[in-house]
Amino acid sequence: MKGVHFLISTLAILASATFLVSASDPSPLQDFCVALNDNKSAGGYFGANAVFVNGKFCKDPKLVNANDFFFSGLQNPRNTQNPLGSNVTTVNVDQIAGLNTLGISLTRIDFAPNGLNPPHTHPRASEFLVVLEGTLYVGFVTSNGDGNRLFTKVLNKGDVFVFPIGLIHFQFNVGHVNAVAFAGLSSQNPGVITIANAVFGSKPPINPDVLAKAFQVDDNVVDYLQKQFWYDNN
Amino acid sequence: MKGVHFLISTLAILASATFLVSASDPSPLQDFCVALNDNKSAGGYFGANAVFVNGKFCKDPKLVNANDFFFSGLQNPRNTQNPLGSNVTTVNVDQIAGLNTLGISLTRIDFAPNGLNPPHTHPRASEFLVVLEGTLYVGFVTSNGDGNRLFTKVLNKGDVFVFPIGLIHFQFNVGHVNAVAFAGLSSQNPGVITIANAVFGSKPPINPDVLAKAFQVDDNVVDYLQKQFWYDNN
Amino acid sequence: MKGVHFLISTLAILASATFLVSASDPSPLQDFCVALNDNKSAGGYFGANAVFVNGKFCKDPKLVNANDFFFSGLQNPRNTQNPLGSNVTTVNVDQIAGLNTLGISLTRIDFAPNGLNPPHTHPRASEFLVVLEGTLYVGFVTSNGDGNRLFTKVLNKGDVFVFPIGLIHFQFNVGHVNAVAFAGLSSQNPGVITIANAVFGSKPPINPDVLAKAFQVDDNVVDYLQKQFWYDNN
Amino acid sequence: MKGVHFLISTLAILASATFLVSASDPSPLQDFCVALNDNKSAGGYFGANAVFVNGKFCKDPKLVNANDFFFSGLQNPRNTQNPLGSNVTTVNVDQIAGLNTLGISLTRIDFAPNGLNPPHTHPRASEFLVVLEGTLYVGFVTSNGDGNRLFTKVLNKGDVFVFPIGLIHFQFNVGHVNAVAFAGLSSQNPGVITIANAVFGSKPPINPDVLAKAFQVDDNVVDYLQKQFWYDNN
Amino acid sequence: MKGVHFLISTLAILASATFLVSASDPSPLQDFCVALNDNKSAGGYFGANAVFVNGKFCKDPKLVNANDFFFSGLQNPRNTQNPLGSNVTTVNVDQIAGLNTLGISLTRIDFAPNGLNPPHTHPRASEFLVVLEGTLYVGFVTSNGDGNRLFTKVLNKGDVFVFPIGLIHFQFNVGHVNAVAFAGLSSQNPGVITIANAVFGSKPPINPDVLAKAFQVDDNVVDYLQKQFWYDNN
Amino acid sequence: MKGVHFLISTLAILASATFLVSASDPSPLQDFCVALNDNKSAGGYFGANAVFVNGKFCKDPKLVNANDFFFSGLQNPRNTQNPLGSNVTTVNVDQIAGLNTLGISLTRIDFAPNGLNPPHTHPRASEFLVVLEGTLYVGFVTSNGDGNRLFTKVLNKGDVFVFPIGLIHFQFNVGHVNAVAFAGLSSQNPGVITIANAVFGSKPPINPDVLAKAFQVDDNVVDYLQKQFWYDNN
Repeated sequence: MKGVHFLISTLAILASATFLVSASDPSPLQDFCVALNDNKSAGGYFGANAVFVNGKFCKDPKLVNANDFFFSGLQNPRNTQNPLGSNVTTVNVDQIAGLNTLGISLTRIDFAPNGLNPPHTHPRASEFLVVLEGTLYVGFVTSNGDGNRLFTKVLNKGDVFVFPIGLIHFQFNVGHVNAVAFAGLSSQNPGVITIANAVFGSKPPINPDVLAKAFQVDDNVVDYLQKQFWYDNN
Repeated sequence: MKGVHFLISTLAILASATFLVSASDPSPLQDFCVALNDNKSAGGYFGANAVFVNGKFCKDPKLVNANDFFFSGLQNPRNTQNPLGSNVTTVNVDQIAGLNTLGISLTRIDFAPNGLNPPHTHPRASEFLVVLEGTLYVGFVTSNGDGNRLFTKVLNKGDVFVFPIGLIHFQFNVGHVNAVAFAGLSSQNPGVITIANAVFGSKPPINPDVLAKAFQVDDNVVDYLQKQFWYDNN
Repeated sequence: MKGVHFLISTLAILASATFLVSASDPSPLQDFCVALNDNKSAGGYFGANAVFVNGKFCKDPKLVNANDFFFSGLQNPRNTQNPLGSNVTTVNVDQIAGLNTLGISLTRIDFAPNGLNPPHTHPRASEFLVVLEGTLYVGFVTSNGDGNRLFTKVLNKGDVFVFPIGLIHFQFNVGHVNAVAFAGLSSQNPGVITIANAVFGSKPPINPDVLAKAFQVDDNVVDYLQKQFWYDNN
Repeated sequence: MKGVHFLISTLAILASATFLVSASDPSPLQDFCVALNDNKSAGGYFGANAVFVNGKFCKDPKLVNANDFFFSGLQNPRNTQNPLGSNVTTVNVDQIAGLNTLGISLTRIDFAPNGLNPPHTHPRASEFLVVLEGTLYVGFVTSNGDGNRLFTKVLNKGDVFVFPIGLIHFQFNVGHVNAVAFAGLSSQNPGVITIANAVFGSKPPINPDVLAKAFQVDDNVVDYLQKQFWYDNN
Repeated sequence: MKGVHFLISTLAILASATFLVSASDPSPLQDFCVALNDNKSAGGYFGANAVFVNGKFCKDPKLVNANDFFFSGLQNPRNTQNPLGSNVTTVNVDQIAGLNTLGISLTRIDFAPNGLNPPHTHPRASEFLVVLEGTLYVGFVTSNGDGNRLFTKVLNKGDVFVFPIGLIHFQFNVGHVNAVAFAGLSSQNPGVITIANAVFGSKPPINPDVLAKAFQVDDNVVDYLQKQFWYDNN
Repeated sequence: MKGVHFLISTLAILASATFLVSASDPSPLQDFCVALNDNKSAGGYFGANAVFVNGKFCKDPKLVNANDFFFSGLQNPRNTQNPLGSNVTTVNVDQIAGLNTLGISLTRIDFAPNGLNPPHTHPRASEFLVVLEGTLYVGFVTSNGDGNRLFTKVLNKGDVFVFPIGLIHFQFNVGHVNAVAFAGLSSQNPGVITIANAVFGSKPPINPDVLAKAFQVDDNVVDYLQKQFWYDNN
């Protein structure tokens, strides 16, 4: 009896382990594989020994219900009082466990006037953006082999623009009022790399000689940049 | 000179062939592969000899510009005066050529009160739905092996729901006013199979004995159903 | 010593957990990944805490043997005395654990005279069908964008027909004797969605207003249909 | 008018080019992509300039019909009077154009008593084999890292065995009568590499010093082997 | 006869069209699909009408020979007298046509003392780097969700380091002599996005307000940066 | 307290289980998924109950550091005093855990004069080979459908050659001095099947009648070959 008790306890904790790493496999292998996102009780139990997979473990399908595919709250404007004047509300597999393995997710992006979603890439997703309110100047830059061409457009309400996977892109509120957009991404865990944050705000910092040479600036400019606070609007 | 003229003409037509078949490959093999959607001049030239690929041919990348990634017009309500009381505005690779190979697309869905987006499947995409206005009763049914379980939810403004790839699902306006939703789909060419249209409205009709036995109804019920007009709201 | 005992017990149970969810990944990442299908002892141990993956866990490769790739018994006719007059014998990853990750499976289908394998889809597989005995009327319907076209053929012994992934298809015995066919499917876990069962036999039932509007029939017809027993021949 | 004539002629030939290279993509990007297999008129027109794709070009979907998904003739025993005493009847994308992009194909294999389907690999497919008549000794060998383990089984009527992708495998008729089996393969163009044919029958021959060292035999043994006729039973 | 002449000319040009867009599909659908890289005669013939595919068209397999899989010249040091002090010699599908569809390529990278391969991403490949001569300080930065962590290592002769797909990474010669490394990439067309070049050297330039806000610098700093010459060492 | 102790112990062992099966998925679903390769303490604990996945489990990302992406030691010549006169130093996911899910790996191959890397296939990878020192005669053979054509080349320092996935290939030192090459492979777990070892050295041996018929030799030749020691140079 006691052995059984230990077993139950063990697995209860295993099932609630800190599965921090999300997934974006476009090929589900069954009707669904709802992610096990629960990490509330896994606190100090596993330490260095937590187990993960490429993607996420799934819930017992018998226990899955409609709430696993549901998220609420995108109707509300978000606070954009931050250095970038923008706020990305992410709804990926961490918010909707049912997105696991389905290869899609979404975000709501709020912009104050002059608000910026700064140059960034999604290493695992292409994106469409549809403007609900306001006016956005948006663009992406192609790779070196294509000549680092910039493609831009000014978008108004009801306009859609597409950002191909892996390319650096941005959105900037060039209107006089708040702007709101919804985006869809071709992964349940697209990832975001904000260029400035990754280059000048890495932890620990990149060797300043690398950055000085790469960006053709003095070491003291690099030093200044590495001392800034790099706000993450995601 | 004359030979050159013929060559130019030939390729001009080749490049504008009727590339009717769309694509949803999640693995672009270059920065982008903007679809060649132009079929306006291909009329009677090719006949039985048009050439296609799995997916779509691409434009010369040097000729690609920002408009290839742009679509306008989703801000406007659509006409829902039809038998289903709903209207799906599709924005896939046929509307935005730049979506080709990027594995994502979107739709706007308008619902009159009691408007229905009837049971259907997307053979090549999972979907998220976000409600902009109104109240929708939505759901999907799992496969036989999972017991044909129904998962449903009533969604209000700002709510999101997810429909896994290949499963039969629907949305129904249970509010008293118009409803509007945006959907994202994990393919640039998700495909739509409206169950009633495919089963009772196929061209030519399925042998009535098959349908009578499959749906446990008399042949005259099948005959009645096969004579209906099956509206396609896509 | 006692601790070790508990550890052994714990993992023994972990390895025999209820891995109910099957897989169809076309990219094995080693020579084989034989599925852990054993759930006989996992009964009450895990409760809500069973762990699953997208696909299936694998056996220790050192313990794999030829029987993991073997199945016996397809030579025998099956009982077709049921409302559909047909019987699908499935041989997927649940029957041959060695099929896990290999992207293929098979079925034997027996048909009484007038026996029907009713309209259904496989969300994760294309299919070929080869007739061993008898005469079958078979067909599939394309998606809305292709006009819901019906492609049919009457097949005799030695004939082969192909059903593309995700499309609604059926087989009907139009001969005077029993018919037998073998099918191959492009997934080790193709899934089956019988249209009538999913639409009219879901658990719980779909809101009748949805079905009445979708199928252009009265509520009492929907009520009648939702009260039928929907036999699953798989 | 004359220009139009040339255009039509040109494309007619383009559409009937020698598309010799088959395909096995498991991700169709539309309902179907029926292969353009017609090469009867492409004879001398293209020379060194034929164009191909990874996979196959597709027919205009408007011209596709049920025959594109149909093949007839697997009911008949094949001639096994050859050095191997076996005969593989292949039904892949070259025989059924509709298999293109669908990731599956099949074969019928006839064996005389002592007939052998010799050690071979499929570089692009896993395989299931179901025995219709007779008794077969079958097996596969794992890779070096797994110790080149041999897994074998004697199969009788109704038995199924699985051969994982890329592994060397064989089937041998150990019964006293003819044997027949059907196989399903997880690609519309699986490819076959018969080990003996590729190693000792390549065109031109491999440097004999390579083979003598690799197979630990004298050069004259290699010479003898390279002079044999290596029958291809596919 | 004349018609035939025109046909030959047309296809000769089609086969030598400007297939500028490379490919990196990891799933070849036949033994090989050697890229058609020849664009020398396609000059002014096609104009806006060149046809491309996702990836590259293939040569007629009958015309393929060993030279299609061969490249010569990686033994020689390259000129590193440029602003970055480094030189990347790329060997991808544009240099070896036989790499098409095979999902791999390589580079040789030469570094002068203090030579830098500046922060960049490969949108379609992971990379291993092996040092042949010299001492390199190398690193990559994770995405925002992972905290923009920097992983670095000083590598000497015979050391290997790995850069995961899509992450920003760099290599810097911290030794006193030239350094040489070979890299392998998991795509035949990995793409390169040098961060500084794409952000400050795009054509046309990004709106300076975007960059000033994103990088927390004055407009005149952005103006200075956008006026620099951004050397591309690839 | 005691229960907690048992839990910690249990998971510590789970995390260090014998995850012997490697992976080569080209689609990482997060920044990285560093393999759990530690099996030193899993000795007798799991017995028949070890759990595996298609690929490998990952380390807790918080515990990942630069050493997980690092390997040292490829600068040194290897011992080639063995029957083949060659030595393959493999650097795949078992040597660099950070290669897990990244779809790439490498080897160093040393050849004595007349040293041979004998005919073999990689079931899960294409390969490029770059010669650092010496002169190699290399080649591969296509599949039956392509006529088992042999493509060969003599390579010198700085030359590169490509071997497509699944095809039989070899390298032979035809120079008078040692040769060294580096190879890149399009998988973190490519697998190696040395033809002679798998065919004549399988454990247990293949039925000699199969091999005698397949290779057109007497049973005593097969018997001789099956008694040889088949050295594995990997």
